[in-house]
Amino acid sequence: TGTFDFNNDSHRRYNPLTDSWVLVSPHRTQRPWQGQQEKTSADGLPEYDPTCYLCPGNVRATGPVNPKYESTFVFVNDYAAVKVDQPPYEQSGADDDDLKSRLLQAQGTRGTCFVICFSPKHNVTLPLMSVAEIENVLDTWTALYEKMKTETTFRYLQIFENKGAVMGCSNPHPHCQAWCTENLPSEPAKEFTSLRSYKAQHGTCLLCDYAIVEQQDPIRIVIQNESFIALVPFWAVWPFETLILAKSHTASLVDFSPKQKTDLADLVQKLTIRYDNLFQTSFPYSMGLHQAPINPLQDESQLAHFHMHFYPPLLRGATVRKFLVGFEMLGEPQRDLTAEQAADRIRAVEEVHYLLK
Amino acid sequence: TGTFDFNNDSHRRYNPLTDSWVLVSPHRTQRPWQGQQEKTSADGLPEYDPTCYLCPGNVRATGPVNPKYESTFVFVNDYAAVKVDQPPYEQSGADDDDLKSRLLQAQGTRGTCFVICFSPKHNVTLPLMSVAEIENVLDTWTALYEKMKTETTFRYLQIFENKGAVMGCSNPHPHCQAWCTENLPSEPAKEFTSLRSYKAQHGTCLLCDYAIVEQQDPIRIVIQNESFIALVPFWAVWPFETLILAKSHTASLVDFSPKQKTDLADLVQKLTIRYDNLFQTSFPYSMGLHQAPINPLQDESQLAHFHMHFYPPLLRGATVRKFLVGFEMLGEPQRDLTAEQAADRIRAVEEVHYLLK
Ligand SMILES: O=P(O)(O)O[C@H]1O[C@H](CO)[C@@H](O)[C@H](O)[C@H]1O
Ligand SMILES: O=P(O)(O)O[C@H]1O[C@H](CO)[C@@H](O)[C@H](O)[C@H]1O
Repeated sequence: TGTFDFNNDSHRRYNPLTDSWVLVSPHRTQRPWQGQQEKTSADGLPEYDPTCYLCPGNVRATGPVNPKYESTFVFVNDYAAVKVDQPPYEQSGADDDDLKSRLLQAQGTRGTCFVICFSPKHNVTLPLMSVAEIENVLDTWTALYEKMKTETTFRYLQIFENKGAVMGCSNPHPHCQAWCTENLPSEPAKEFTSLRSYKAQHGTCLLCDYAIVEQQDPIRIVIQNESFIALVPFWAVWPFETLILAKSHTASLVDFSPKQKTDLADLVQKLTIRYDNLFQTSFPYSMGLHQAPINPLQDESQLAHFHMHFYPPLLRGATVRKFLVGFEMLGEPQRDLTAEQAADRIRAVEEVHYLLK
Repeated sequence: TGTFDFNNDSHRRYNPLTDSWVLVSPHRTQRPWQGQQEKTSADGLPEYDPTCYLCPGNVRATGPVNPKYESTFVFVNDYAAVKVDQPPYEQSGADDDDLKSRLLQAQGTRGTCFVICFSPKHNVTLPLMSVAEIENVLDTWTALYEKMKTETTFRYLQIFENKGAVMGCSNPHPHCQAWCTENLPSEPAKEFTSLRSYKAQHGTCLLCDYAIVEQQDPIRIVIQNESFIALVPFWAVWPFETLILAKSHTASLVDFSPKQKTDLADLVQKLTIRYDNLFQTSFPYSMGLHQAPINPLQDESQLAHFHMHFYPPLLRGATVRKFLVGFEMLGEPQRDLTAEQAADRIRAVEEVHYLLK
């Protein structure tokens, strides 16, 4: 029956960063789709929307008035998932012999949730902003990271962007969020566990080594510059998932040289332009930064290797998404096209944004 | 600043079954929603739809003709994610000193994917079927489990249902899927790891103990009968997530007594009726069974404790869903209302289906 073919035979791939698996079914890409169709984003938004709670000068739902900001704007989320002012949690009768305290375990979590507007303009997105404007966003993130590191005892600052209605984003005004919490959240925690055990076993950084492997045979690399690589990871779950990886071992935003910062802004712009061009639509995704905790414990600041994950749901065209449901929730994540096929597709599109041609 | 209040203060809860955490933000339930609205399911479907590829007597996309079945109907998925006929995978030069074989790890996976129609009627769903008809579905699952156990060397049979367009279901004809794979998928694998270490540490079954704890103070129990409990687990992620738990330590479908099988059908019916009544809509979810592997290794058949997970996305009404995006993908899952509040809500609705009143 021939030899095993990664482009035609089902297989699982291992994610060493989170110690998890994905099922890949490349022969299944021809499946027709009769299910739910997504709406595409309304083009032709105004530069200023008087009903938007993020536009400069507008009043927010809970009362405050936004300043007439001219670049970025940071404020505390009016409906924050964590807050500073709450009593400490003490587990009642923490006695491991007691079934209840053994099985019903909880922790209190204090913190602060920020909203960060990328631009005063209601109708832009990262791929439609200049490299200098994106650098300004990076500077805003860096300043917030520094501020929380200095002024709080919180553990981690998770910066992330939900883009597009299909990703639960309720306002198209370009913005991201940053949730700062007392606890290290699960995803970065898993990554630190993997980075730690890889280092213990091999003496090197998992992500430094991974960058080397991918550069040796660049079939999954989408785009790169001197300081960063954007690639579809071997173990990608979402159809067009990518990872932006610092080429040198750099722990966090505050450790970047000016050159690295410009290079990162450049790569974010180029990658998101390609995303928009893929299906000629404002490409939805959740994106986020993983880096050193603001208050690192033990070896975490040595282990940390700055990277960004992009998780976009679209599969085939602007209206057909991948659903991670049923088997994915109960069994394990599943994808159809391979990481290499996805990288080919993202590489094949033009570098200039389709709206700017 | 007072004492910690689970109904008002942010906290994390631990899931001992999958060794993971969820962030709970109960003070955030008042957040307004301006984002994407889901379409509700088209009511008034016909009992027979000539264009449906699952209705009796119809031709499927790839050519085969469905029999004129009168109860359940099982066939191999025309676009299966795994297949029987593929060459075995051999990792080339598996040498752990080589960066490539260390970081790019894969496994071949053979298997079979089945589709299981619950009924010849295009316009019913589990909550609209009789207990006897649901028992017949359980019998069909049991027969398939037995068949795959006897006739194959595959490891696991994952039975799951995606219900509703919002859960990626492309056909409303009542059906589920069963993916049979050479490998134990990640989710049941994590559960076996937890069940094993709990047993080693405490000498008992984690899920038997959990059933005891929840019965002592039934604030999260939605409904129960002699053999099964349906509850919102302490560590639920989805707003109205539930777990159906066998009260006695039973490994799989084939181990149930006739009484247990009737009780399970009864509980599935009653739970899904309550779900539909919650927002007076055909309640979408992904649901699945976790049980002993069809070809168990080591202690797996002793450890296995039959249960079903229901993961429904709706949050507030028939059109507003919870998105597990941004922070959930990059940080950790987050919910607003507590498990106890969700159980209260499901308990409060009527037992009779709103369409049958
Ligand atoms: O096989 P279906 O029902 O067409 O597809 C659905 O369920 C599968 C298993 O959960 C998922 O992989 C698909 O993304 C989803 O759309
Ligand atoms: O805070 P937002 O943008 O209103 O809400 C969105 O992002 C949050 C963080 O990823 C999620 O918890 C919400 O489910 C989602 O709708």
